[in-house]
Amino acid sequence: MSPKVSQEHKEQRRAKLIEAAAEVFIENGYETATMKHVMDKAGVSRGGLYQYFENKEDLFREVIQGNQEKIIDGSLEKLIKQQSSYWDVLLVIMLGDKKESNDKMDPLSPSKLEYFVTRRNDEKRREYARLRYFDAFEMTTKIIERGETAGEFIPRFPIRLIAKSIISYIDGLALGHAILDSRTLELKEQTTLLLNYLKWALGVEEE
Amino acid sequence: MSPKVSQEHKEQRRAKLIEAAAEVFIENGYETATMKHVMDKAGVSRGGLYQYFENKEDLFREVIQGNQEKIIDGSLEKLIKQQSSYWDVLLVIMLGDKKESNDKMDPLSPSKLEYFVTRRNDEKRREYARLRYFDAFEMTTKIIERGETAGEFIPRFPIRLIAKSIISYIDGLALGHAILDSRTLELKEQTTLLLNYLKWALGVEEE
Repeated sequence: MSPKVSQEHKEQRRAKLIEAAAEVFIENGYETATMKHVMDKAGVSRGGLYQYFENKEDLFREVIQGNQEKIIDGSLEKLIKQQSSYWDVLLVIMLGDKKESNDKMDPLSPSKLEYFVTRRNDEKRREYARLRYFDAFEMTTKIIERGETAGEFIPRFPIRLIAKSIISYIDGLALGHAILDSRTLELKEQTTLLLNYLKWALGVEEE
Repeated sequence: MSPKVSQEHKEQRRAKLIEAAAEVFIENGYETATMKHVMDKAGVSRGGLYQYFENKEDLFREVIQGNQEKIIDGSLEKLIKQQSSYWDVLLVIMLGDKKESNDKMDPLSPSKLEYFVTRRNDEKRREYARLRYFDAFEMTTKIIERGETAGEFIPRFPIRLIAKSIISYIDGLALGHAILDSRTLELKEQTTLLLNYLKWALGVEEE
């Protein structure tokens, strides 16, 4: 077997393990999930899992890393070219390609909340939370700034604060999603209200 | 010793234990706090603690119960009489007596997040979370409805959704407070922005 094939094989193996782990975290949440659950789900031995991932935390970060990259990678520039307005770019970032409020939430979000809230005094975990926050913050800020430069947005408030308010509101919805039933949360309707707040804050003209 | 004195003594004892527990949860968070921490903090024996509280969860609920009552009890009617507008009533509910945005957050809020997010599939915990949500929701809704009836508010959106948006935003801020540094969060500034969103959504006239 050539080293190249072996490397490919390893990558595939790794990807499958991450996929299995994602399912385990979605089903169990972060705290109650174990490496054993992942072994069972993926049908691998202890050695087969630990060869790729040191521990549950390591594995979880890989899972949510892949999850976030889907959104923020694909590069912002490409996204901007595809959309007809910066408002639409914001919608894609927040709601996905359909740009419509919906009742769906990232199924990993309850586990993410758990991960970041529990043992939050762990300095490495805090640092990681900060990095993730800044990724979302910078992307949002950049889109709003570009929209302002293009004359599409006339922000009523400092752009950095509008960006932070989006994150806070969405974090709050994620929390509601984790602990409330969907009729109580009204995710879709609350998301539409967030969009209304934003249109007003950004001075977006109604079509 | 008369039964009455003994009852009083017990109540005092219980209150002291709840106070010590609050400190322990603030210092350690929910998951890492133990009954042993509370015994040490209060300077009581194992028996002295378990005589009053069955377990950590029981104790925690007592802590946050007292914490919430301070806000929602004291009766809404009394609060309405004390304030010159329904907007001011909303401000007191959200910001306390000074009615000003500030950088303070309930020090128990990170523990509360932990408690509600971890093991959220526990049906009793979910039910309790729902009850707490409805308390906040009903109070907020009632204030806005009264303000609408009085002609002070002219809501642009369904009142129930505006109320839910307040809770979502504040929950998101609580999450940020638990994991971010204060310069990143900008709690005071984000709170002011929330107030601006609300003034607009409620059609509150600027003075």
